[in-house]
Amino acid sequence: MRVSELVATSGVPLATVKYYLREGLLMPGKPTSATQSTYGDEHVERLALIKALAGAGLSIDRIGTVLRLIEHPKASLFETLGRAIAELPPYDVDVPDYPRAKAALEKLGQVYDPRFVAVAQLERALRAAEEVGIAMTDERLEVYGRHIRGIADYDLSLMPDSVEAAVEYAVIGTAVYEPVITALRRLAHHDIASALERPEQ
Amino acid sequence: MRVSELVATSGVPLATVKYYLREGLLMPGKPTSATQSTYGDEHVERLALIKALAGAGLSIDRIGTVLRLIEHPKASLFETLGRAIAELPPYDVDVPDYPRAKAALEKLGQVYDPRFVAVAQLERALRAAEEVGIAMTDERLEVYGRHIRGIADYDLSLMPDSVEAAVEYAVIGTAVYEPVITALRRLAHHDIASALERPEQ
Repeated sequence: MRVSELVATSGVPLATVKYYLREGLLMPGKPTSATQSTYGDEHVERLALIKALAGAGLSIDRIGTVLRLIEHPKASLFETLGRAIAELPPYDVDVPDYPRAKAALEKLGQVYDPRFVAVAQLERALRAAEEVGIAMTDERLEVYGRHIRGIADYDLSLMPDSVEAAVEYAVIGTAVYEPVITALRRLAHHDIASALERPEQ
Repeated sequence: MRVSELVATSGVPLATVKYYLREGLLMPGKPTSATQSTYGDEHVERLALIKALAGAGLSIDRIGTVLRLIEHPKASLFETLGRAIAELPPYDVDVPDYPRAKAALEKLGQVYDPRFVAVAQLERALRAAEEVGIAMTDERLEVYGRHIRGIADYDLSLMPDSVEAAVEYAVIGTAVYEPVITALRRLAHHDIASALERPEQ
């Protein structure tokens, strides 16, 4: 397809497509003349991926890092996934130590790598809960841990086999489904609270 | 306690305490002279609550709205909770219609109010998932819905009886535990991926 069709199909404006081409985020099309190139499905898919990552709050630099990890994964899938997920927000997480996260993860019996930003993220969130008087308890950790494990098991059961596709699935699945999960929890609260208020029904 | 002690106990700087007093977010202390007042535990608790709400990204105006709802709840707990939770981010959610959210909530058999911002939030998240090729399926919705329901049931089972305390618990619990849940999901993915990579163990 011509670039005008790529713009129409992807919904990404021409100036943005050109910018992604210049930045190397979008692979070049196949030249058909000195000034024109032709594009394929892989360009449409790449633009959807860039759009999703940008929508999840990633800067152009971070999107580039994720795309390079998809194109050139590290030897270990585990490491590649960890690095790619670390490019997703939140970033302003800086904790000198992570005693609460460590205790929680050990109670859950999980393997973890403290360099993985989600550990610091968990530490900060657990500290905030403590400060406002709703500290994590063993019971809440057991309930949350069990249900989140159920969700994560399902997520991983659908992970594609190829490393490239797996990294893409993991990054996009994390970025795109976190707001689904938080919205569903708010709506479940709402539904349960409404039933509490109308016990006669 | 004197204001200096309130500052030390709460960890909120004096200038900020004075600002909250001026804005009416913090109730005045009991005057002990023309220029001095004395403060109690309710001030320490209020400052922790303001800190938590500010930490969750709420503006001063929105914090004021939440505090007024806690102090003067509406006739219905359901409505009060809905209004208070609506003050939490994200805000930039504007959808003309919500076909995906409607279908999902009906499949889950949940009561919902389309004016509740989480409906729009869910619509936007489901649309984003669709655009990147990981659209919500019936199976994923069933798995996610069941586990999120388990978490929400637990949350609500601990909700205090008084309306004031219930609103505070719901707002803070939503704001503070969403990052706990998303961090735990990332860490569960990491743990499961690490086990996949070392099948011999």
